[in-house]
Parts: sequence; structure tokens; C-alpha cells
Amino acid sequence: MASADFGHEPLQAWLVSTRCVACMSNVYAVILAGGSGTRFWPASRRLRPKQLLPIAPGSDEALIRSTARRLTALIPTERILVSTNAALLEATRAALPDIPAENFLAEPAPRNTAPCIGWANSVIARRDPKAVMAVLPSDHHIADEPAFVSMLTEAIQSAQAGVVTTIGVEPTRPETGYGYIEVGAPLLGRTFRVQRFVEKPDRAKAQEYLLQGNYLWNSGMFFFRVDILGAAIQSHMPELDTGLRQIEAAFAQGPSAYAQTLERVFPHLPSISIDYGVIEKESELNVVRGGFGWSDLGSWPSVWELSAQDSDGNAVTPTTLLVDSHRNLVQSMQTGGSKRIMALVGIDDLCIIETDDACLILPRERAQDVRAVVELLKEKGRQDLL
Amino acid sequence: MASADFGHEPLQAWLVSTRCVACMSNVYAVILAGGSGTRFWPASRRLRPKQLLPIAPGSDEALIRSTARRLTALIPTERILVSTNAALLEATRAALPDIPAENFLAEPAPRNTAPCIGWANSVIARRDPKAVMAVLPSDHHIADEPAFVSMLTEAIQSAQAGVVTTIGVEPTRPETGYGYIEVGAPLLGRTFRVQRFVEKPDRAKAQEYLLQGNYLWNSGMFFFRVDILGAAIQSHMPELDTGLRQIEAAFAQGPSAYAQTLERVFPHLPSISIDYGVIEKESELNVVRGGFGWSDLGSWPSVWELSAQDSDGNAVTPTTLLVDSHRNLVQSMQTGGSKRIMALVGIDDLCIIETDDACLILPRERAQDVRAVVELLKEKGRQDLL
Repeated sequence: MASADFGHEPLQAWLVSTRCVACMSNVYAVILAGGSGTRFWPASRRLRPKQLLPIAPGSDEALIRSTARRLTALIPTERILVSTNAALLEATRAALPDIPAENFLAEPAPRNTAPCIGWANSVIARRDPKAVMAVLPSDHHIADEPAFVSMLTEAIQSAQAGVVTTIGVEPTRPETGYGYIEVGAPLLGRTFRVQRFVEKPDRAKAQEYLLQGNYLWNSGMFFFRVDILGAAIQSHMPELDTGLRQIEAAFAQGPSAYAQTLERVFPHLPSISIDYGVIEKESELNVVRGGFGWSDLGSWPSVWELSAQDSDGNAVTPTTLLVDSHRNLVQSMQTGGSKRIMALVGIDDLCIIETDDACLILPRERAQDVRAVVELLKEKGRQDLL
Repeated sequence: MASADFGHEPLQAWLVSTRCVACMSNVYAVILAGGSGTRFWPASRRLRPKQLLPIAPGSDEALIRSTARRLTALIPTERILVSTNAALLEATRAALPDIPAENFLAEPAPRNTAPCIGWANSVIARRDPKAVMAVLPSDHHIADEPAFVSMLTEAIQSAQAGVVTTIGVEPTRPETGYGYIEVGAPLLGRTFRVQRFVEKPDRAKAQEYLLQGNYLWNSGMFFFRVDILGAAIQSHMPELDTGLRQIEAAFAQGPSAYAQTLERVFPHLPSISIDYGVIEKESELNVVRGGFGWSDLGSWPSVWELSAQDSDGNAVTPTTLLVDSHRNLVQSMQTGGSKRIMALVGIDDLCIIETDDACLILPRERAQDVRAVVELLKEKGRQDLL
């Protein structure tokens, strides 16, 4: 594999020169923001998906804006790219006014992460063939930002040495909703070899991983040199490689030819995640391990868990009145803030989410069933609420 | 007692002449509409109490308007009086535009029912000293209106014969929230002597009453001749009698003197219910027994019980979406109707009440605790929501 050229010796060289500012001048980030989902309905909609919502506890910033802001500690906005799609392009640009318009890459069709990261890789490689690229989800929450920036630095330096690197989060509970990374040999600092990636475990396995201490949550953040990823795509996904080369070749023929080729080729690229298609097939991978208050904010209960709670465990809007009620989440996404009084009497463990046009009430343990409401709205033809 | 003049012989005389239309020409009704309460918050407010709300299942009519409408089958609007208070006068008149303005009696101070019914008795006696008066709560629900009108007729005829008469509802469940009437000797038709009044029973007693079959729910409706009630007040509540005579004496001195005397005397009249102060002290009372789908609509769960329910027991607004939810009440008192979608997932046995400025959520079994929210709003000085 390509990383053979950048084996242990150079890796150890950079590990000594940590915090080398010059090393950061070729670092790019790609924020993945093509996602849509139903788990945050009624706050989220087709054209206002989770990453565009200000649902992080204690913040009124859209999640994607927080993601970009955290990166700017190391990477200037000119080198932050955003991968999204045509439908979300306008709203995503509006959420990130500091990022140059040409840095937004709109996929012509959803093809999972391998094609869109591959495309971003070509775009960045064109700007700087030796660039290091960080790929980050747009919709996660990070409580300890300084700790995160420090891990980011280590992950970038590991990637600069030629090894695809990920960030692994030290688990704090036996979570069955995340994939895990088994930690291998220590390198330096918080950087380790990856032993293997593990699918979402059952409860017993998750408990075991937590006790063993050598399993980390897969944060979905990847770091690599663009030449390394290009070679890995060529090696593991030749079909994708061919498509990406066709698209890139059209760049020289001007914007119109480029757009047309993209429209023609992209929708037929193999639809697979970069994890399965490329990264997990690499023979050597590094992971930087740490804790930085990370959460993928998977559903409303995550928002409740991370929020400041009163002594009865409630996390509610200022206009909520509580009588003998416990462990509830009350969120309002109403225009101009919540003005209505929400009064709860003898209510426990509910999530109550208000928008201008909808109110959702469900027990925390039923949070995954929001999708049933969305299905019902589809059946009823209520496009206005989707 | 005064009714001795109208003993069994005349009583039996009228019982033969049932449905005598001529007998109805001296019948007046007084609707008691001075009540305020918190059990229907957030729909009810200080200036919009329960009787002014359209909360009867399947109806968009304020409860008091339904009460008046039901009476007009027997009594023209000119002979329907409404007892209310100064604060509610305007809103109550607005709800009953067909009733002449002078038929609204505004108590200067809340003194329970004996003073206000006594005052109405004087006013009606002035118009017709032999009048029969029906006293009815303004905020009850009656499902079977023809059956009710038929019972009303019998009760009026019993009262015309000189015996204070009440309507007793055949119980359909072991209700602990109502007072009961033990039925005595049968007279004719559905009219019986009253054996005794019984306070709200415990569950075991209520169950016993239901099985025995000779206990009826006290509907709070009373019927009497004004001369009989006048004599009863004189006999059982001489202090009230003196006060009422003072007020009545001022009538001849013109509206201003009348109003001033009312303002001066009324607030000092003994504060007691007509039941305890007068009626239950009468040695002979009649009760007309029957079933007519009566409910005092005591709280939100009564609304749920009486509403049309889907196969899962839900009674909800048309804009409610239900997923695996059972036995819920969703009511909207929003201006212009409910437009927001209310989505429930995995929710059972809740009452959810929406207005423009508030939303209340509580389990059906906690309905009585609405008052705690109202207390909290008072503490917070939120007069706008009371």
C-alpha cells in the first residue's frame, strides 16, 4: 500500500515535532453535510436537516457552524470545504457565511460517503497534491473544545506522516449505538495503531468493551494525505477511481464541462461508505484516543442527556412550568423563541418538541419512533411538514 | 312550613294534568353563572370561566348557551334570568345575546348560592308572585335533551303544586364526586319524595348506592314556587330574609337607590349554599328521577369520557397524529382552530390542552392538579395567564 513510503521512521519524526505550525499550512477539512434524517422531526425538515439546527445544549449555533468554528482553531475558512447536495446548498451556505462559495461541493446524487469524499479528495489534491485532509461529520457535539483541538492536531500530524488516522473516543458508558475501534500498539502521545474496527455491539459486548478499556467509540472523523487516499481508492475501489478521474479530467475543459461530467458520472459511482470501501481495507491505520465530551447527538434523548438539568432532571425552555414532573426535555424551535407557556403536571420522561407548525410528544425511550410520524405525514401528503 | 298550604291534594291534582301548557306561562328559570374555577385551565381564565367555554363534546356552543337553549323548549328567553357577577357580566351577556339585558343579575360580591338565588327569587316574585322558578347550573352537559325536557316538565309541575323539587340522575357508575339523593315514597310518574340528601360518598358507599338503586346523583337543579322559597328563607334564614327585603324595598326608589342598596347590603348577606341554608331544611321535598346523559363536566377527563373516541380510546383534534397512543384527550382552544400538528408517539392516558398562549400536559388521573399550575402562575405574577 501507498503508506509504505511513510513507514515508522517518518511517523516518529513528526511525533517529536508536535505543534509544528508550518505543518498546518497544507491542511484542509471537509465537513460532511449532505445528511438528512427524521430523528429530529419536527425541528428537522427535508430542507433543514439536523446539521442546520441549533440543538446543541447551551448553544444557539447550528451544529455545522459549531463544527466549522472548532476547525478554525487550526484551519482557515479558505481551506474548509463542505460536502452537501443541491437541495441543501443554499441553506448550508447561509449557515456558513465565512466559508468561500467555491468550497461548497454539491453532490448531484446521494451515493454514500466514498464518492463524495473521493471527489473532495480530487478537488483538494488539485489545489495541493501533498495536502492533508480532515473529514468530519457536520452534526456532532463536542463539549470540550480545547481537548478536541489538541486531538485534531495529533490526528493531522499522524496523517501527515502517511497513515490514515481516525479519532477514537474513550467510552463513558456501554453504548450500543456506536461502532468501536479496538486499540493496538501505542505509538506516541495519544496515537495508537488500530487493531480493528467493530460493528455496533450488543449490550453485553458493549459492557465488556467498557471494562476492557482498549475499545474506543468510532467518531467518524478521518485524517489522511490526499495522495495516500487517492492511492487507496485506486487500490481498493478501482471503479470509483476511474469515475473520479473522468470528473477531474473535465475540470480543465471549463466549469460547464466539469458540471456536466459531474452530473453524468457521479450518480453512477459505487454507493458505499468510505469506511467500508476504503479505510478499513488499509493495512495500517492509526487512532488518536481521548475524551472531549463527544456525542453524535443521535436523537432527542441525547439532547436531554447533554443539557443542563434541574434537580428533577428536567431540561426545559424558560417558559415551561413544572409540577411534580421529572426527567423531561422541552425544546422549542418556534420563530422568535417560545412564548407559549408549556405546563407539565405529573409528567415523567417525555420529550416535547415545539415548532411553529407542530408539536411532538413522546417518551424518551420511544425517540427512535419519530420516523413513524414522518411516515404518517408522507402518507397524508403533508409535504409542508416534512 | 309554608308548603303546608299546598299539601298532597293539589300535588295529586297537577300530576293528572301533566303537559298543561298554560301552567308554563308563569315559569321562570335562573341560570347560575357566577362560577369561576381552575379545573379547565388553560382554556378557562378569570374572565372566561368554564360556563363560557365550548367544551361540551361534539358542540361548539358555550356551555351556558346550551343550558339556555335547552330551557327555551319550555321557557321563553324573556323569562330566563342569569345570575352572574360584575366581572363576568359583559362576557356572559355576549354569550347569551337572546336574553334581555335586564335579566342579568350581577352579584356585587360572591356570597355562595343562597343570597343570589334569594335575590333572583325577589326579582321574579315582583314580576309574578305565583311564579315557579327553576334554578340550574350553567356549566353542565346533557346528552339526551328530549329526556331532559320531559323531566324538566315534571319537576316544574311538582314545584307548581308547592313542593320544592329537585332532579335526581340515575347513577351509571360508583361516582364519588357527586352528592346523592336517597329516594323515598313514589308519587306519580318519575316523581318521588326525597328521603334524604347524602354527602359525596367513599368508593364502597358509592358502589352500595349504585347496587341499591334508590340513590340518585344530585344534579344541583331546583324547582319551587317563589312564594314557597320566600317563606322558606324567612323561616330558615331570617337574616338573609331581612337583607333581601331591604334590597327589594329600595326598588321602588328607582334604579340608583336599588343599585346602591344592593351594593351596601348584598356583600354582608350570609354566605351559604341554598342547599344547606334552605332546601335541605324543608320537611318535604320531591325528586324527579331519570337518566338523560347528565354530567357536571367536572374536569378534562369528563370531556374525554363523553367525547367520541377512536378505537384506541383517543379523543383528539383533527390535526392530531397518533402512533401507538391510547386513551388521550387532545383539545385545542386556539383562535381560528388548531392548525399545528400535534404528534403523539407511544403516549397513553394524557390530557393535552392547547390555547394560543399555553399548553397543558397531564395524565388523566392528575387532572385535579391543574390548580397547582394556576397557583404557580399566581406566584410568578402571570396575571395574563390566569
